[in-house]
Amino acid sequence: MQKIGFVGLGQMGGAMSRNLVKAGHSLQVYDLDEAAVASVVEAGAAAAESPAAAAAGAEIVFTMLPIGAIVEQACFGPDGIAEGIAEGAVVVDMSTILPAETKRIGMRLAEQGVGMVDAPVGRTSAHAVAGTSTFMVGGKAADIERVRPLLMAMGEQVTVCGPLGAGATMKLVNNYISAVVNLATAEGLAMGEKAGLDLEIMAEVLSHTPAGRGHITTTWPEKALKDDPSPAFMLDLATKDLGLAVDLAANLKVPLATGAVSRQLYQVAQARGHGREDWTTGIYRTLKALGGV
Amino acid sequence: MQKIGFVGLGQMGGAMSRNLVKAGHSLQVYDLDEAAVASVVEAGAAAAESPAAAAAGAEIVFTMLPIGAIVEQACFGPDGIAEGIAEGAVVVDMSTILPAETKRIGMRLAEQGVGMVDAPVGRTSAHAVAGTSTFMVGGKAADIERVRPLLMAMGEQVTVCGPLGAGATMKLVNNYISAVVNLATAEGLAMGEKAGLDLEIMAEVLSHTPAGRGHITTTWPEKALKDDPSPAFMLDLATKDLGLAVDLAANLKVPLATGAVSRQLYQVAQARGHGREDWTTGIYRTLKALGGV
Repeated sequence: MQKIGFVGLGQMGGAMSRNLVKAGHSLQVYDLDEAAVASVVEAGAAAAESPAAAAAGAEIVFTMLPIGAIVEQACFGPDGIAEGIAEGAVVVDMSTILPAETKRIGMRLAEQGVGMVDAPVGRTSAHAVAGTSTFMVGGKAADIERVRPLLMAMGEQVTVCGPLGAGATMKLVNNYISAVVNLATAEGLAMGEKAGLDLEIMAEVLSHTPAGRGHITTTWPEKALKDDPSPAFMLDLATKDLGLAVDLAANLKVPLATGAVSRQLYQVAQARGHGREDWTTGIYRTLKALGGV
Repeated sequence: MQKIGFVGLGQMGGAMSRNLVKAGHSLQVYDLDEAAVASVVEAGAAAAESPAAAAAGAEIVFTMLPIGAIVEQACFGPDGIAEGIAEGAVVVDMSTILPAETKRIGMRLAEQGVGMVDAPVGRTSAHAVAGTSTFMVGGKAADIERVRPLLMAMGEQVTVCGPLGAGATMKLVNNYISAVVNLATAEGLAMGEKAGLDLEIMAEVLSHTPAGRGHITTTWPEKALKDDPSPAFMLDLATKDLGLAVDLAANLKVPLATGAVSRQLYQVAQARGHGREDWTTGIYRTLKALGGV
């Protein structure tokens, strides 16, 4: 049983703090929304008057808040966590914020001998309720090991991504790819529906291909992830097919916004001499070169 | 044992025609490249002098060619398939071309009593060699059933997508999504690498999430595929995270081209009132509305 502070009891934080109570910990919780506080208090937590009060005497203080500015306010504003927290304690921010914000907060906490771990959450609120969240974690190894049992009380997987801010970076990489994939799926299926294809048939076909199952576990392991350019599918051919899709969309009068810009990037890859390479390795080499990686 | 014509013996066509020979069929094969012809003849096929000669007396004629204009040329040019093929035969085009080209070719063949099926190929040349290709098929049911056993001699899955051209459309929908997903994966990972994340750790994290495993079998079945707007993950939050990723990329000076345009489309979805809907349903409704689907 540990004494824990918890600031931010929204859809995610409310569910997660309840799982800490269930695991037998002593929680001091704070939120601007009194109904949210009441609901966690009913589960067995103690209400705190401020972030400072939630942090008072706690070994670990969790924050789960909407944006970076609010995390900073909760830490360093009037009656903030920094005013109440003891030297040697650790703040664990589970919000999705910029890694630069995470690092700035961590540096200020370090000045008063307080550790920080960033642990943004994978999956959805349903998983938060079920205690099956995943965490992408950044921070010092010793701090991470201290908080790991608590994270495992709220979830089922903790992936250590690197130093402070690495969890936030990983979360943004993940959610970035996910948002584009979601949109590209919508674009492709809307085009198919307008052309007369059946949505269920399309979903069935895509459930067997990298288009539907993603590339990272299908086409990438033997190629881009090993920087192997030998083609399983040549970038020139992928570019040709993308051009045909953009032409088809023009005929059908449907928008393929990500495809139009993708075509430009594949052409950049061709112009840089990657046309006869595998399309995964060729495009990854191109992006790394363009980004100075 | 059937008499079969086969035009186009490149990396894909060469492998596929050899699988038809292995299955015991009598093949008449044609390609401009004499070495490609010789390699299939060695496996047991007969060399034809022209597409017309390859089609002469054949029940089914396969074409596997780089672009639509070449398929048209092979069918209707001098010594083309149309000159040699018998009434009642079926042309099966496995090339990746525009559905409008497929339909145009099919209409001209129909004028002389010849059927047509479009059957573009999923997966890669390695699968073509192994006989484990997949086919997205369009055409009349009777024609498709006639050619199905031959497709199954070259592959392991035939998905009937609709009338003539539906296979070509499905292939472009698939390859469109796949090309964007491949690029978005490269963009996200290049950003992560520049921020100091380890490529293997990123690949491991992504192998458990919709970002890496695709949306069509994970987030879509209970939401967008059922047009259910109740949010598992709210479109407003996805848009916020996408904005953070674009900001992070700006800080790191790396390009996120598909993400920049994706952000615009998510904002369109918000402007149209889909912000508090599930991000899959909200974005799909938006794309359908924009495309007049």
